Amino acid sequence: MHKEIKVAACQMYIEPGNPAINTKTIIEEIAHAKANGDDIIVFPEMAVPGYLLGDEWENEAFVRDCILFDQEIIAATAGITAIWGNVSIDEEKAGEDGRVRKYNAAIVAQDGRQLGISYKTLMPKYREFDDERYFYSLRKMAQDSKRTISEYLKPYHIEIKGKQRKVGISLCEDMWNDDYTLNPIQTLLDNGAEFIINISCSPWTWRKNDKRHRVVRQRIKSNPVPFIYVNNVGTQNNGKNIFLFDGSSTFYNPDGSLAKVAAGYKAEQLRHTIFAKQQKADTKVQLSSGQDREELLQGLIYGIRDFYKKIRAKKTVIGISGGIDSSLSAALFALALSGENIYAINMPSKYNSETTKSAAHKLAKNLGLNYAVIPIQHSYEYTINQLNNAEFTRLDGSDVITKVQLSQLNNENVQARDRGSRILAGVASALGAVFINNGNKTETALGYSTLYGDVNGALAPLADLYKIEVYELGKYINERAGKEFIPQEIFDIPASAELSDEHKVDEGKGDPIIYPYHDKLIRAFVEFRLDPQHMLEFYKKGILAEKLHFDNALLQKHFDTPAKFIDDLEHKWKLFKINYFKRIQAPPIFAVSRRAFGFDLRESQNNVYFTQKYLQLKSELLK
Amino acid sequence: MHKEIKVAACQMYIEPGNPAINTKTIIEEIAHAKANGDDIIVFPEMAVPGYLLGDEWENEAFVRDCILFDQEIIAATAGITAIWGNVSIDEEKAGEDGRVRKYNAAIVAQDGRQLGISYKTLMPKYREFDDERYFYSLRKMAQDSKRTISEYLKPYHIEIKGKQRKVGISLCEDMWNDDYTLNPIQTLLDNGAEFIINISCSPWTWRKNDKRHRVVRQRIKSNPVPFIYVNNVGTQNNGKNIFLFDGSSTFYNPDGSLAKVAAGYKAEQLRHTIFAKQQKADTKVQLSSGQDREELLQGLIYGIRDFYKKIRAKKTVIGISGGIDSSLSAALFALALSGENIYAINMPSKYNSETTKSAAHKLAKNLGLNYAVIPIQHSYEYTINQLNNAEFTRLDGSDVITKVQLSQLNNENVQARDRGSRILAGVASALGAVFINNGNKTETALGYSTLYGDVNGALAPLADLYKIEVYELGKYINERAGKEFIPQEIFDIPASAELSDEHKVDEGKGDPIIYPYHDKLIRAFVEFRLDPQHMLEFYKKGILAEKLHFDNALLQKHFDTPAKFIDDLEHKWKLFKINYFKRIQAPPIFAVSRRAFGFDLRESQNNVYFTQKYLQLKSELLK
Repeated sequence: MHKEIKVAACQMYIEPGNPAINTKTIIEEIAHAKANGDDIIVFPEMAVPGYLLGDEWENEAFVRDCILFDQEIIAATAGITAIWGNVSIDEEKAGEDGRVRKYNAAIVAQDGRQLGISYKTLMPKYREFDDERYFYSLRKMAQDSKRTISEYLKPYHIEIKGKQRKVGISLCEDMWNDDYTLNPIQTLLDNGAEFIINISCSPWTWRKNDKRHRVVRQRIKSNPVPFIYVNNVGTQNNGKNIFLFDGSSTFYNPDGSLAKVAAGYKAEQLRHTIFAKQQKADTKVQLSSGQDREELLQGLIYGIRDFYKKIRAKKTVIGISGGIDSSLSAALFALALSGENIYAINMPSKYNSETTKSAAHKLAKNLGLNYAVIPIQHSYEYTINQLNNAEFTRLDGSDVITKVQLSQLNNENVQARDRGSRILAGVASALGAVFINNGNKTETALGYSTLYGDVNGALAPLADLYKIEVYELGKYINERAGKEFIPQEIFDIPASAELSDEHKVDEGKGDPIIYPYHDKLIRAFVEFRLDPQHMLEFYKKGILAEKLHFDNALLQKHFDTPAKFIDDLEHKWKLFKINYFKRIQAPPIFAVSRRAFGFDLRESQNNVYFTQKYLQLKSELLK
Repeated sequence: MHKEIKVAACQMYIEPGNPAINTKTIIEEIAHAKANGDDIIVFPEMAVPGYLLGDEWENEAFVRDCILFDQEIIAATAGITAIWGNVSIDEEKAGEDGRVRKYNAAIVAQDGRQLGISYKTLMPKYREFDDERYFYSLRKMAQDSKRTISEYLKPYHIEIKGKQRKVGISLCEDMWNDDYTLNPIQTLLDNGAEFIINISCSPWTWRKNDKRHRVVRQRIKSNPVPFIYVNNVGTQNNGKNIFLFDGSSTFYNPDGSLAKVAAGYKAEQLRHTIFAKQQKADTKVQLSSGQDREELLQGLIYGIRDFYKKIRAKKTVIGISGGIDSSLSAALFALALSGENIYAINMPSKYNSETTKSAAHKLAKNLGLNYAVIPIQHSYEYTINQLNNAEFTRLDGSDVITKVQLSQLNNENVQARDRGSRILAGVASALGAVFINNGNKTETALGYSTLYGDVNGALAPLADLYKIEVYELGKYINERAGKEFIPQEIFDIPASAELSDEHKVDEGKGDPIIYPYHDKLIRAFVEFRLDPQHMLEFYKKGILAEKLHFDNALLQKHFDTPAKFIDDLEHKWKLFKINYFKRIQAPPIFAVSRRAFGFDLRESQNNVYFTQKYLQLKSELLK
């Protein structure tokens, strides 16, 4: 009987940057676990301060404030063992930024006293992660003191129900060691850990949970012990990207099977008894790729709700054109915030078809939105007229005159800016609402959008979804609802900007982008970090379609010669690179893919470059 | 005679992300040094690829391309020794991002063959620096191989004029070790280095060169040897910030005095003979703080020119209001690009005074700009009329009506957006020009600006200067020219947005900001990373003015009770934090201070927080 340990995995909601609120949550949850007779309660990494705080880690008053809260939590641990994440400092030593040295730490307390503190060993520094920037690692500590990692990474000896247990405590990245020269979990196991706790603050991305299950199995393969993974819920951001924390805290059996998995995006205590006589896998919770679209949808809905809570916004203004992007946005917001909080505006010029105008109205009706039509034709004409009549005089005595003359493309951009900056921004400010951006990842990559026009908005919920994924998620929302939220005609017409007579949807005219191919090309650039050189290598070998996962017939159809293929490849690479100037000023994006634009993909405004091998391959192919 | 070594410090212009062009430069410079009979030529850190490239380091084709160029450079070293910076890889090992392991390296070659390669030991990761993110350090190599740093950090034995010399080679941060537990320069000296070479890619910030001179003196104090510092010129960016590389390459005598200093922002070879019989300090080049304003001005002018070259732009559109910010911008651009390329637009509404309108015209004349007046009154009225007449109908069967009603503040924002998104963006696109942002650091911090209005622009040249610094630089430009570029009345009127009758400059009405105090408060938040808690601590002790360097009389004048002081402090802290949402979408900023907004100061969109100690101090002060 005394072998069993009752563990509460507290998948809490973390309010980033507010240790007072988080401490209150932690103390309430400890009381709750005590009432349930739990032996151990485990909280996520950085449960007290939050994790993605930018350079607020340099604010020493804030950091010391976070640490003070440990005392309150420790005092609340009478009759239980608690483990939580917080920042920790070393007063005696400087960090490598010259400030007080900080650690990403796990604090262990029992019966009102602190048993110890563990420091994170592996410091993630890819994608949005910046642990090395802010925290000193156990690895550096070991190097400084000329001791081995193993001397530090020992399990805690904790008395539970009268028996000493060896508890191995790790933080997030410490279990994701495949690319490091250290293996902290193995070290803990080698040092006798009877079970492993991993406290994390780990954002959701597509299929990451499946990968985690495989990783845990691998970690405990040679030493089968229970493994407890505790993650938080909420959203945290670094400005350009908003990350979705799904929780999905998990108890693993010693064989790596799933004992229990917490619900996604739900603040809850998941309880499980480890070392119980009978252990069995939880068959309910096998995650599968069939859930992809539902997981994505849940993530986006949760993200919208939490972001709006954070910025204390309720109402949304959204421009709806009758195209798929704005329709999906509107549907997502209706699901997240309900129709009464959505103010949808259709802003036609003479270039907008009856088809799309009526589709926009139908969409608003299907979703029960507040709806207005605010035309831009008059103001568009006024602007091009005013600007075309403007002239500059050189005031150097020469009085040289320069006349302003807008081109067709300039005129298109005037329409987009009129909608984004004049109407949407104006209405949103009057209603005390925020307005959102409907751009997808494909157009964000290629700059197929107007700065201060459709690039505007407080949030870009779709900007990590390629165009085809936008269509698919739109279809799924209809399927799932068993009714037509998004009118069918919106799926049937070509994707089009409707900014000139060249964009007439009723004549089948649409965007100059081959989405089934270019979506994949951009994914290769952005997510797989491939270069045009790789594309030419694949193309030459005839394996491009296979490598990028598109239908090979597209190549034949659109690029019947290598010259045409290369022309388009260079054009798209240049657009991708040059249009970073728009992304610099673009709104925050939910990160849901392997790599989102924003802080997740750090770019630089430089001239476009092609490697020597690329140029060589090109000249071979053009021979 | 054989003791002397002739060294060329090649302060080259680096084109970031273009190894082909940089290699061409390097090879030409080697030929030039050979013709001059130099023994050694030294290039900057990352001379081949450039340094601030964002996540382009993950593009393996690009990285391998850079490395291939080493062979061309090596082949060019017949009769000379050359040292240059490049990325290097280890095919056998993975980096901590799972990709090929990369190093920030110095390659040493002589007579057509590679003598060796050195790896950077210390990895900066504060401010804009991200070395840890991309590169594996010598420090980690040592830990992996269980060897000491000293076993790696040995001087090269290089034969120069028939004599073996021990040359210590270091990379940038390796000399800035004060906050690290390692001291690579000392290790090289302990291992017998006869002189030290430091290759850097180090951006200019205010007074950094003076600090560097002190640091070098300290590094060679116990082992006096010649020290050669080679830095590049150009600009490099990570999107949100543009960094100015001034070069200022320096030969230091063994006593730490300056032997020779290269010109700022000039691509040149600086030559010096080390171990010559007579060494003397170069008295011409003592940098002094008296040069501050000139250095800043030169940096901004250089930055504008180089940024425009990079984005292949020639013409600038700029809105000039007759206020100081836009006047300084216009003057800077006129100095950088000449008046014929500047298209200045005054965009009055009825709220703009004759005083500022005529000042704007005078400014354009003084600078010889192209000038146009494009009023916004009609379109402003049209917009508020159109929006105030708009109404939403709830399409859920209820037909509930919501009317749009713009407030006074909303109306002000309409004017700003009309200027920024309708006029400036429209004219710039028609002229094939870019338009710029005139915001200063104070308003960027407090969000005293309109998103999609005056937040717009391709570049924010002043956004790292506080308001008072804008005035000072404006005055300096006039003084320096010996004539009135910026009309005197612009300095005399109050700073004002002129967006309503509450902003009438002729009635002395201006911005609701006490610049001499708030500039300093914001500087404390942004650059010294201080918290409101620190402000209350200083205030309570009566040392706030002294600590922040403002006139203590301001406190008495504006805040005659602690309650008023605290109200304002909280208001400004909240504005600073909340208005990050505007900075997310703001243009690139030249970084010139200790900390610029942008990638240099990483922020997060979170709720505003006050520490427990702050709340306690506040309640004590309000008793």
